[in-house]
Amino acid sequence: MTRFVDVHNMVKWVADTGPERIMAGMVDYLESDFRRWETFDKTPRVASHTPFGVIELMPTSDYETYGFKYVNGHPSNPARGYQTVTAFGVLADVHNGYPTFLSEMTVLTALRTAATSAMAAKALARPGSVTMAMIGSGSQAEFQTLAFRSTLGIDTLRIWDTDPDAMAKFVRNVAPLGFHVTVASSAADAVDGADVITTCTADKAQATILTADLVRPGVHINAIGGDCPGKTELEASILRSAGVFVEFAPQTRIEGEIQQLEPDFAVTELWQVLAGRAPGRIDDAQVTVFDSVGFAIEDFSALRYVRDAVSGTEYSVEIDLVASPGDPKDLFGLVGALSPVG
Amino acid sequence: MTRFVDVHNMVKWVADTGPERIMAGMVDYLESDFRRWETFDKTPRVASHTPFGVIELMPTSDYETYGFKYVNGHPSNPARGYQTVTAFGVLADVHNGYPTFLSEMTVLTALRTAATSAMAAKALARPGSVTMAMIGSGSQAEFQTLAFRSTLGIDTLRIWDTDPDAMAKFVRNVAPLGFHVTVASSAADAVDGADVITTCTADKAQATILTADLVRPGVHINAIGGDCPGKTELEASILRSAGVFVEFAPQTRIEGEIQQLEPDFAVTELWQVLAGRAPGRIDDAQVTVFDSVGFAIEDFSALRYVRDAVSGTEYSVEIDLVASPGDPKDLFGLVGALSPVG
Repeated sequence: MTRFVDVHNMVKWVADTGPERIMAGMVDYLESDFRRWETFDKTPRVASHTPFGVIELMPTSDYETYGFKYVNGHPSNPARGYQTVTAFGVLADVHNGYPTFLSEMTVLTALRTAATSAMAAKALARPGSVTMAMIGSGSQAEFQTLAFRSTLGIDTLRIWDTDPDAMAKFVRNVAPLGFHVTVASSAADAVDGADVITTCTADKAQATILTADLVRPGVHINAIGGDCPGKTELEASILRSAGVFVEFAPQTRIEGEIQQLEPDFAVTELWQVLAGRAPGRIDDAQVTVFDSVGFAIEDFSALRYVRDAVSGTEYSVEIDLVASPGDPKDLFGLVGALSPVG
Repeated sequence: MTRFVDVHNMVKWVADTGPERIMAGMVDYLESDFRRWETFDKTPRVASHTPFGVIELMPTSDYETYGFKYVNGHPSNPARGYQTVTAFGVLADVHNGYPTFLSEMTVLTALRTAATSAMAAKALARPGSVTMAMIGSGSQAEFQTLAFRSTLGIDTLRIWDTDPDAMAKFVRNVAPLGFHVTVASSAADAVDGADVITTCTADKAQATILTADLVRPGVHINAIGGDCPGKTELEASILRSAGVFVEFAPQTRIEGEIQQLEPDFAVTELWQVLAGRAPGRIDDAQVTVFDSVGFAIEDFSALRYVRDAVSGTEYSVEIDLVASPGDPKDLFGLVGALSPVG
């Protein structure tokens, strides 16, 4: 049988446990998987593009467990009452190919994206960072704040979004969570005094929501909104004078902020920093950028974490996804005996 | 919500309806999709190979509906009590990327493979074909016989397998179905007098289970067991003197019987015959071969067929796979309000 976590159970598990605690646990799984990054099968995602958006399959494997995520990205969805991004994922046993775990991943992707950002910031931001500017207050924003609090100690938020309703929603959601929140009047106002800047807007365009003159020495930029071809958020000159860290360089050069730069622009893969194979931040004055686009291994870590965390609890159910005839060669026996003739 | 057909409901639907009737209906869907073959997104499958076997994702899209199948192939599974092949599949709406339909596909793949074989034979075999030789009596065998009866009028079977238990299982399963069945003493004995020869063994090797001297003029060969690199069943010279029909030539040259031949060996894609764009059988003396490896569009047709056939019945249930917050930008609102702080 295959274990299944549906939306109802995912929401209940996250609400009961607390998203902050979950993301803290997820960071441990992510760090463990990033440290063994080289041992994973890093097949590129398979995308089906249409004028409406994209549907992708993102597989990976550590040769014991195989995982993949189905995910869509449809920028025009919110205006029609749908989520921009929905997702679900599967884990399977490599030795026999049987799927063992199925989970909703719309909520889980939000958690893993924020946990990944926080893991990168823990490795790259200045120690003692407490203030984060948030440019963009969509679906990701609240998750980011909680992940950064548990992992980095962020307790002060400066928020800016061009959509006042989205900002109001953000303030309403984080108000009970114990942060100091300032609603800024512009992106420039938001980043004033920030130790960390998170850019996460939904514009599907080469926007420049953060210009070089706004970036002070020593800041860490968590750039998560520029994540597909044609969609960037940072002025290119920010990248040229910063230390730029990515998940998987071949993919980020196509999808990330660095799509604006020459193909041999020097970047460091984050796993190398976590594995002690490359330096992270050089000094307190360096600007560091995590140019994040999302990678299948992060979904793999998140699925593993949920699977283990809900094991033996009521947050999952069994579903009957794999036929098990008594004789493996007698699949027909499952249906034949009862069938009408002709 | 997403409709879900689990193994229990699939088996019940097939048993209640009858596999023969289902495959006849599926042939209609397959023919319709093969005729519009050119309009599909034909992304190659994404495979993760290990010494144990392979796990594949097979996506396709007609730009209104997106579909994919997860399928494994583990030759050593039956010896350990597992199915060689298990599968499940998904359909999604392209306009918003939401998954609408999830189904088990272990049983369904068996049905679609046999329905595809029967569709090809209907287009390629000599009219009036009534006798089929079956070389190999594994999981596929019974499904093939029923699909060929409903589509082509096959009523006489000559079976051969090196595994006596598998032959006994086959005879036991088809005995109540009204065929004339002869258990042959060899492959040569099985093909004697056959109008159609189906080769479907599990050997993962360049086996020669059918040699040219056994192939009489006018026969149609339904070659379904040679379906991955290094796995073939026909002597190469059979192919050289036959009309060879394939699903998708770039894939079949890697996975099919024609992997034994030079890369420019002339073949016809089956959709061209069904769309009236290429001739099928030339005369009653020609040997025709359907060199079948399975293609994502066939799974797409099968999933569409089940989805439509079980719509409004009790053979499917709703599952909660996609989060639907009231405000699409407020995913956190689903979990935040109820969450413990800190």
